[in-house]
Amino acid sequence: MVNNKRIVLIGAGNVATHMGLGLQKAGWEITQVYSRTVESASELAARLEVPFVTSLEEVCTDADVYLVMVKDAALQELIPTVVKGREQALFVHTAGSMSMDVWKGMAQRYGVLYPMQTFSKQRTVDFASVSFFVEANGAEELDVLQTMASSLSPKVYEATSAQRTYLHMAAVFACNFANHMYTLSAYLLEKQGLPFDAMLPLIDETARKVHTLCPAEAQTGPAVRKDANVMNKHLEMLAEEPELKEIYKIISKSICHSGQNEV
Amino acid sequence: MVNNKRIVLIGAGNVATHMGLGLQKAGWEITQVYSRTVESASELAARLEVPFVTSLEEVCTDADVYLVMVKDAALQELIPTVVKGREQALFVHTAGSMSMDVWKGMAQRYGVLYPMQTFSKQRTVDFASVSFFVEANGAEELDVLQTMASSLSPKVYEATSAQRTYLHMAAVFACNFANHMYTLSAYLLEKQGLPFDAMLPLIDETARKVHTLCPAEAQTGPAVRKDANVMNKHLEMLAEEPELKEIYKIISKSICHSGQNEV
Repeated sequence: MVNNKRIVLIGAGNVATHMGLGLQKAGWEITQVYSRTVESASELAARLEVPFVTSLEEVCTDADVYLVMVKDAALQELIPTVVKGREQALFVHTAGSMSMDVWKGMAQRYGVLYPMQTFSKQRTVDFASVSFFVEANGAEELDVLQTMASSLSPKVYEATSAQRTYLHMAAVFACNFANHMYTLSAYLLEKQGLPFDAMLPLIDETARKVHTLCPAEAQTGPAVRKDANVMNKHLEMLAEEPELKEIYKIISKSICHSGQNEV
Repeated sequence: MVNNKRIVLIGAGNVATHMGLGLQKAGWEITQVYSRTVESASELAARLEVPFVTSLEEVCTDADVYLVMVKDAALQELIPTVVKGREQALFVHTAGSMSMDVWKGMAQRYGVLYPMQTFSKQRTVDFASVSFFVEANGAEELDVLQTMASSLSPKVYEATSAQRTYLHMAAVFACNFANHMYTLSAYLLEKQGLPFDAMLPLIDETARKVHTLCPAEAQTGPAVRKDANVMNKHLEMLAEEPELKEIYKIISKSICHSGQNEV
């Protein structure tokens, strides 16, 4: 199979930007970009050197694949309009937490292409290290999605909608919530005029460790040592930060519980 | 100055193990290991090929530096016995959250040598990328600690006890709590028979991102997008995990608030 499908990007956010650039680089023909706002539609269209539209009715009707990459809340709303008049095409979304069945009864050929990665516009993505999870409503459709994903990364897996939902929730913990711990750390340091950069070796080693140890084994710090002195001192230091104090308490408690489970 | 001090290690946990091995490799003479339990004392002593004792009274009295690396809760208790009969030596602890003043009125020459890193016995530590924070009660003492730290890493900084306490608390968030997010992620995946390995590229990229973006800018996921659909779905999936559900809620709320602060 060759990368001979004509693809329209519906959406121009972080995921659409990186997927669009990646697919184009891999030889796929991106024919058009749609976004609600001129600003983001034109920005991505310029980077890809393709036309853009800001109304779904203007989206071309002759593409092979409509790759929908919008906020989950917008996806369901948008589906009937996207599919209408384009019934022969393959419809694909990239949302970790949305079932493939959002297409059911709407489109005839459909699927999901979920790149499990954190995309920021300012960062180049190394697609080769991104895991892709694909699902489709037919063998031919699955084949197209596998070809698309394989053109970006060697790590392509089939996953059902139920499995993907759990993968996505697990990613929220391992990525989004871990990053927020960095944010809180940076906030606490900044208040004292201390540089966040000092944390980077620690952050790197924390990430590296779980390549060889399971995360529960890799756990260090006052909570896993049940060092009440230190934890109480930290809670006192957070006296004027009720939200951070609550987060400190509940995560420390959860670390203690995880420790107990292992024994 | 040369690495000509004779050092006794008080403690044989993760920090003592890595510091002992690192200092010995850097040319310092480790003369003895103390730990309460024969098991851990003998294990570290064997790795260093030095004698060990399990009673503080038996610790030799003629070393230059007593490097105390025990649980914070044990430190204060242990100080009078360690110092007694060894008043001319330099006394040092490695605890991020303990003030240098724990030595005050006990020892005459003292300080703190805080390696900001997560130490697991099973992992080799790359000391060159560890930040060390030093503090001492005199210029000569500070000089010894700076020489010791510099023999392990180029990243040696002076920090007051107050600053170090904040550095340590910030490290609890950026390292210990981030790692617990990995643990919860692994737990959720395991329950579904899904491999934690799939998360590693995501964990790596999340850590890499904050080298070039500040963590708040790097934030992605449903909470920062204020995607209530996804968050509610995840909370439903966590219905039988009250602790995880609570953690999910409070961190998502905190991410939303951080977003608001930036606007």
